[in-house]
Amino acid sequence: MATAPKVSKTDGKNNHDAADEQADKEQQEAIEQIDEVQNEIDKLNENASEEILKVEQKYNTLRQPYFKKRSDLIAKIPNFWVTAFVNHPQVSALLNEDDEEALQYLTKVEVQEFEDIKSGYRINFYFDNNPYFTNEMLTKEFHLNDTGDPSSQSTPIKWNEGKDLTKKTNNGNKGKKRSHEDQESFFSWFGDHGDAGADELGEVIKDDIWPNPLQYYLASEIDEETGGDGGEDDDLDDEGNFDEDEEGEE
Amino acid sequence: MATAPKVSKTDGKNNHDAADEQADKEQQEAIEQIDEVQNEIDKLNENASEEILKVEQKYNTLRQPYFKKRSDLIAKIPNFWVTAFVNHPQVSALLNEDDEEALQYLTKVEVQEFEDIKSGYRINFYFDNNPYFTNEMLTKEFHLNDTGDPSSQSTPIKWNEGKDLTKKTNNGNKGKKRSHEDQESFFSWFGDHGDAGADELGEVIKDDIWPNPLQYYLASEIDEETGGDGGEDDDLDDEGNFDEDEEGEE
Repeated sequence: MATAPKVSKTDGKNNHDAADEQADKEQQEAIEQIDEVQNEIDKLNENASEEILKVEQKYNTLRQPYFKKRSDLIAKIPNFWVTAFVNHPQVSALLNEDDEEALQYLTKVEVQEFEDIKSGYRINFYFDNNPYFTNEMLTKEFHLNDTGDPSSQSTPIKWNEGKDLTKKTNNGNKGKKRSHEDQESFFSWFGDHGDAGADELGEVIKDDIWPNPLQYYLASEIDEETGGDGGEDDDLDDEGNFDEDEEGEE
Repeated sequence: MATAPKVSKTDGKNNHDAADEQADKEQQEAIEQIDEVQNEIDKLNENASEEILKVEQKYNTLRQPYFKKRSDLIAKIPNFWVTAFVNHPQVSALLNEDDEEALQYLTKVEVQEFEDIKSGYRINFYFDNNPYFTNEMLTKEFHLNDTGDPSSQSTPIKWNEGKDLTKKTNNGNKGKKRSHEDQESFFSWFGDHGDAGADELGEVIKDDIWPNPLQYYLASEIDEETGGDGGEDDDLDDEGNFDEDEEGEE
């Protein structure tokens, strides 16, 4: 631990007498004692984090059968996921028309948080047989690598010949009337590992869509019929985290 | 709950036959069942939030005696708080020279989170007799008002005549060599209730300084001596909240 800090030095004359020295010594002791108290506080914080993690893990487990049941029900509804994505403002902005066509084959989405939660998560996308690629499932996974840095991995997409949506830019648009015609493909996201620590689409799917996809599936209708915002229900939190602004949003 | 949504309507011809109607009915039933499952998930989320809140409250209580002890020790060190503030990059940017002089009389800072935590917090600033104002304590409090919106309140500062730092702009600087000479006063913050839901200084004090003020008190020395960052230890979290990036920062 360091000794007397900056500001107390600004009046530092050179004629330190015995009283000054005594005061310095007492301050130094106080600093050391603060350091000890701080260690105790840090220990409590660690214990609190561990207990909270246990609660989160418990509820993660309790939620699983409901997620399973929900997936089975969603499978009965054609175009459920592409509709939810199209109705989500941020995700919709990442979809071009070809993406929307390919995503009609998306039958199931699964978000898996790793056992210790903080270490990462995986999103699985299951597809029906489709003209675009041969994979039955595409995965993108976010985790901390050996050096503790966030990193991501994903399934290489096995595109059918001439169907690689990540390579279509200008030539893929045959006079379609979308405003952002050269919109990069949603599927490029699988190969983008540039910001694994804060992957926007990954986090939107995990934290915003996955907790309640139905609200997005139904969102356009709610907007039309009631003028409600339909897609901004932040109170729903997959991890059961305490939402500080919860009451403020009611 | 609404009926068939946007995308499934896009192929809406008018010749609905019995098979179509049956399919519509089944989808509608699935939507209703998803809604029920979602309600179960929401209930689990609420329970998880409550349990986490209880853990946070428990540790809030356990931390109190250590905070008390820490405050008593800090009181033995002259200029502790003004030094910690000056060494904190964000807070430092809010201080002009007069503020720094006035803050030398600041002997104690206290952050109190309200019992249910999410409803708000209060920061108390205790001052020695000083030439600037007569208050012994200044408080700023953040809470949700009756309509559930974030709002803040604070102690009106009883300035001594000619000493109101919030009214000094140009004329207060008698040729001082600070680069931002017209820097608004730190004390203006007490009267600023413009963004109570995300008060930057309030949150920096609560979430960054209060968890470990010693590191900021010592920060300039650590920087000078070791070149370390000294003031960026985000692992310390007053509320004991789980820090998702914790391992990534090690």
